[in-house]
Amino acid sequence: MTMHDTDVERRFALAKSLAAEAGAFALDYFNTRETLVIETKRDLQDVVSIADRNVETFLRERVAAANSEDGFLGEEFGHQVGSSGYTWVVDPIDGTAPFVNGMPTWCVSVAVLHQGVPVVGVIQVPCANELYAAALGLGASLNGETLLLDPSRTIQNAMTGIGCNTHVAPDVVGAIVTALLARGGTFIRNGSGALMLAYVAAGRLVGYYEPHMRAWDCMAGYCLVKEAGGEYLPFPTEGEDLFKGHPVLASNGTAYPELLEIHNSLRRQ
Amino acid sequence: MTMHDTDVERRFALAKSLAAEAGAFALDYFNTRETLVIETKRDLQDVVSIADRNVETFLRERVAAANSEDGFLGEEFGHQVGSSGYTWVVDPIDGTAPFVNGMPTWCVSVAVLHQGVPVVGVIQVPCANELYAAALGLGASLNGETLLLDPSRTIQNAMTGIGCNTHVAPDVVGAIVTALLARGGTFIRNGSGALMLAYVAAGRLVGYYEPHMRAWDCMAGYCLVKEAGGEYLPFPTEGEDLFKGHPVLASNGTAYPELLEIHNSLRRQ
Repeated sequence: MTMHDTDVERRFALAKSLAAEAGAFALDYFNTRETLVIETKRDLQDVVSIADRNVETFLRERVAAANSEDGFLGEEFGHQVGSSGYTWVVDPIDGTAPFVNGMPTWCVSVAVLHQGVPVVGVIQVPCANELYAAALGLGASLNGETLLLDPSRTIQNAMTGIGCNTHVAPDVVGAIVTALLARGGTFIRNGSGALMLAYVAAGRLVGYYEPHMRAWDCMAGYCLVKEAGGEYLPFPTEGEDLFKGHPVLASNGTAYPELLEIHNSLRRQ
Repeated sequence: MTMHDTDVERRFALAKSLAAEAGAFALDYFNTRETLVIETKRDLQDVVSIADRNVETFLRERVAAANSEDGFLGEEFGHQVGSSGYTWVVDPIDGTAPFVNGMPTWCVSVAVLHQGVPVVGVIQVPCANELYAAALGLGASLNGETLLLDPSRTIQNAMTGIGCNTHVAPDVVGAIVTALLARGGTFIRNGSGALMLAYVAAGRLVGYYEPHMRAWDCMAGYCLVKEAGGEYLPFPTEGEDLFKGHPVLASNGTAYPELLEIHNSLRRQ
């Protein structure tokens, strides 16, 4: 074992335990959600509450206490530069809209990047009591059971997850749905991109595609899919790119070229 | 209390207890789903297993034992004519695709029609331990708590459920998504129309729209939405119409006209 491996493994263990704690913390808010004040951000559909902020603060403080030299990027409070080469990338509650509306499809997403690559990906799903966990080279698991993608699954014989937000034009989203269905596929959208990426790693969805996603939504899921044997479209992480939205595509190797075709056909329009 | 009310209430009590039993039975299959043989019906995305068939058979036998004169219409084994004026309309597992793929968004849907109108609607969601129950004039509830829709919810400040299948052209589904997003709405598709209708009754989704649905997918949900104070697009139940697919739309009163506009705009295309 090299020093680098030890560093990753130590952060992997911390990510799992923090995600579990953060999930329990968020679940308390979910179970008393009638008392939450719902605020809107970019538009009426972009919602947030004190639950998101306090769960992120919890994670920030705990990471800083354990690894004060690590960077931290969270959805709610932005970027804290680090010096260790490791950056935590966190969405305290991915799927805030399902969360505030009482649907169970939300999760806590915790990734650690090293030199721009997600080396740790942990997704905790409190309502399902599921912990998805992966670290680079160490494989992916769901509640301790190893995840390994099945290459016989295609967009024709399995379901594909999709996502969108108001950064993507309505007719582009419609075109994604049309293209997927026209190829014999079908779609799920449960309101949490991170959870759908975890579902890809677990083989519940064959792939996930969203034209514009932020790092905190996808980095943990990317690590999970990769370690389960799948592929993903690289997410630019150099400089300011880490803070911008980019297309996200992840799937098993079989579905990847076909989903990439759909993505490329949209870019040509 | 009239004799008619007694008849409905007796069937309402039976529907709730049978749905709970059927849900537990289906959950056993879900927890051992690796052993299920998945068959396809109309296309590769239209899946079924022995779980669907055996849960339906269980419900058929128990209804026949309690009310031998009632009709029964189920997704898997078709229509058994009755003489009482009551017809049970059952989807043993709505959301078979999520079910066989390991996602929790499936349910048991049990409705009772009287003179073509759903007078009982019960939806059991085993993975969430939720029982949605309604009977005409008796209100709707979720695990015993009364459901009452909030008229301040709109497609702009809440999420809308959508569904589709290969009876609907891919570009029509794409047009629904585009229209909904262009109006400031957003969509969820969790793979179970019955569950999304239950979510409408619970205020988790503001509305649900699918251009082609069968009676067993929507009748229980329709009763739930109506009793929670919402509206629905009438589903033709006379003669052969009961066995055909029709558009399904249900929501609170505020979103209804806007969703109906989307539906009507598609019909004019």
